Amino acid sequence: MHENRLSHGNSAGSKAADLSAVKALVFDVFGTVVDWRTSVIADLSAFGRNKGIEADWTAFADAWRAGYVPGMERVRKGERLWANIDVLHRERLDALLDQFGIEDLSEVEKDYLNRAWHRLRGWPDSVPGLTRLKQRYIISTFSNGSVQCLVDTAKYAGLPWDAVFSADIVRHFKPQAEIYQGVIAFFDLQPSEVMLVAAHNNDLRHGRSHGMRTAYVNRPTEYGPNQAKDLAAESDWDVVVDSLTELAQRLGA
Amino acid sequence: MHENRLSHGNSAGSKAADLSAVKALVFDVFGTVVDWRTSVIADLSAFGRNKGIEADWTAFADAWRAGYVPGMERVRKGERLWANIDVLHRERLDALLDQFGIEDLSEVEKDYLNRAWHRLRGWPDSVPGLTRLKQRYIISTFSNGSVQCLVDTAKYAGLPWDAVFSADIVRHFKPQAEIYQGVIAFFDLQPSEVMLVAAHNNDLRHGRSHGMRTAYVNRPTEYGPNQAKDLAAESDWDVVVDSLTELAQRLGA
Repeated sequence: MHENRLSHGNSAGSKAADLSAVKALVFDVFGTVVDWRTSVIADLSAFGRNKGIEADWTAFADAWRAGYVPGMERVRKGERLWANIDVLHRERLDALLDQFGIEDLSEVEKDYLNRAWHRLRGWPDSVPGLTRLKQRYIISTFSNGSVQCLVDTAKYAGLPWDAVFSADIVRHFKPQAEIYQGVIAFFDLQPSEVMLVAAHNNDLRHGRSHGMRTAYVNRPTEYGPNQAKDLAAESDWDVVVDSLTELAQRLGA
Repeated sequence: MHENRLSHGNSAGSKAADLSAVKALVFDVFGTVVDWRTSVIADLSAFGRNKGIEADWTAFADAWRAGYVPGMERVRKGERLWANIDVLHRERLDALLDQFGIEDLSEVEKDYLNRAWHRLRGWPDSVPGLTRLKQRYIISTFSNGSVQCLVDTAKYAGLPWDAVFSADIVRHFKPQAEIYQGVIAFFDLQPSEVMLVAAHNNDLRHGRSHGMRTAYVNRPTEYGPNQAKDLAAESDWDVVVDSLTELAQRLGA
C-alpha cells in the first residue's frame, strides 16, 4: 500500500517505478519553485513608480524572459564562451531598456534591476512543501540560474535548500547532458537515487533519459494567463502533483 | 565606533581592515564548526559496543585523522587522480581495521563506519552562531570534505548553510590556490567581500594571500587534550574570537 502510493504515476497503466531508493530531490527553480513572472513584474513596477518611469512592465518582463532561451542557446552551441545567467540577463536588459526607450539609468540602477531575478518569491506551497521534504530527503536546486541568484533568492523567499547546484558549477545549461550527469555526481548518488522535480516536461524527459526519477508539478500560470505549454504532464512521470506540499504528502514526507 | 569594533584585530597595533564590504562568510568545517574528534570517537565507540568489539577507539579516531593530510597530499602532488575525502577515509579505514585486528565486518558495516565523518556534531556555539550570521551574510562551507559529507553533517547537526562549497567542486584540496579562487568565483564576489572563518592559522594565511578577509576561531581542544597546534592566533587576523556566537556579536549580526 505504502509502495503503491509512493510510485503512483499519472498514467494508470504505466509501470510503477520504485521510489524507495530516492535520497535527493533536485528542483528546477524558475517556474517550479518560484513565481518568477509575478515577482519580476512587481519588482519592475515598483522601480518604475519610484523613478517615475511609465512602461508596460508586464510586457518588459515577458520580453526579458523571452531572451532567456536564445541567450543560453548561443552558449550551448559554443558560439560564445561560458556566460552565466546574470550576464545573459544583463545583456538582454540593456537591449530592452533601449527598446522601451528607458534612458539615463545609472550603472547602480541597472545592476539593481538585473537583480530582480535574485528577488523572486516562492509559490504559496513552496516553503511549506520544501520544509517537509527536507526532513526526509536532501533537497537541492538544479537550475540554470547562477549560484548568486539562487542563494539570494533562497534568502529572499526563505527556501531551505540543503545545497545549491547550478549551471555555474558545470558551466553547462540544461538540457545538456553535463548538468544532469553533474548533479548526480555532485551528490555521489546513483541516478535512480535522484528525483528531478520540475514543472517542465522537457526537463523531466532529459532527467529520465539519464536514469533519474521524475516528479511533475503543475504550474499552469508560470507564464501568465496565456500560458501555452507545460499545462499538463505529457508522460507517465513517476509522480504528478499540483504543489510541493502535495509532493511531500505523496512521498510520505 | 561601529567600524572600529568590526575591524578590531588581535594585534592592537595592526592596521584595521575594512570589513564593511564583506558579503559572504565561508567556513572551514572540520574543527572550526564541528567537533569531529569527539563525534567520531563516540560514533566508533557506539558501533563497538553494539558489535561487541573492544578497541581503543580514541586511538583509532586519532590515527584515522592522522591519515588525512598524507592522503590529500598524494592527490595534491598529482601522484594519483582526484579522489575525494570519502574515498581517502575509506582507504585509511580499511588499513586501520587491519592494523587494529578488527575482522569480519561486512561491506555495509564498513560503509556505515566510514560515514562516521558524515555524522559530526557542531560545537555548542555553532548552530546559534551560524543562525545569527545567516541573517546578515551568505554563510557557506569551505571545506576539504565531500559534498555528501557536508550535506549529511549539516542535516545531522542542524547547520543552516546557504550553500555547500567543497573541494569536490574544484577537485583541489586546500591549501591549493584553485579552491580559494574557486570559492570567490563561485559566489561571483571580490576577494575582499569574502571572509574566511577558520580555527587554523595556515588556512587563514592562504585565504589572506588571495585577498580574503580572515576570522580566527579558537578551538583549543579540536585535537583533544594534547593539542599542539593552532592554540592561538598567529597573525593579526581581522577578527579573533572564541566562538561563532562571539563572531556574530563582533560582526553586528
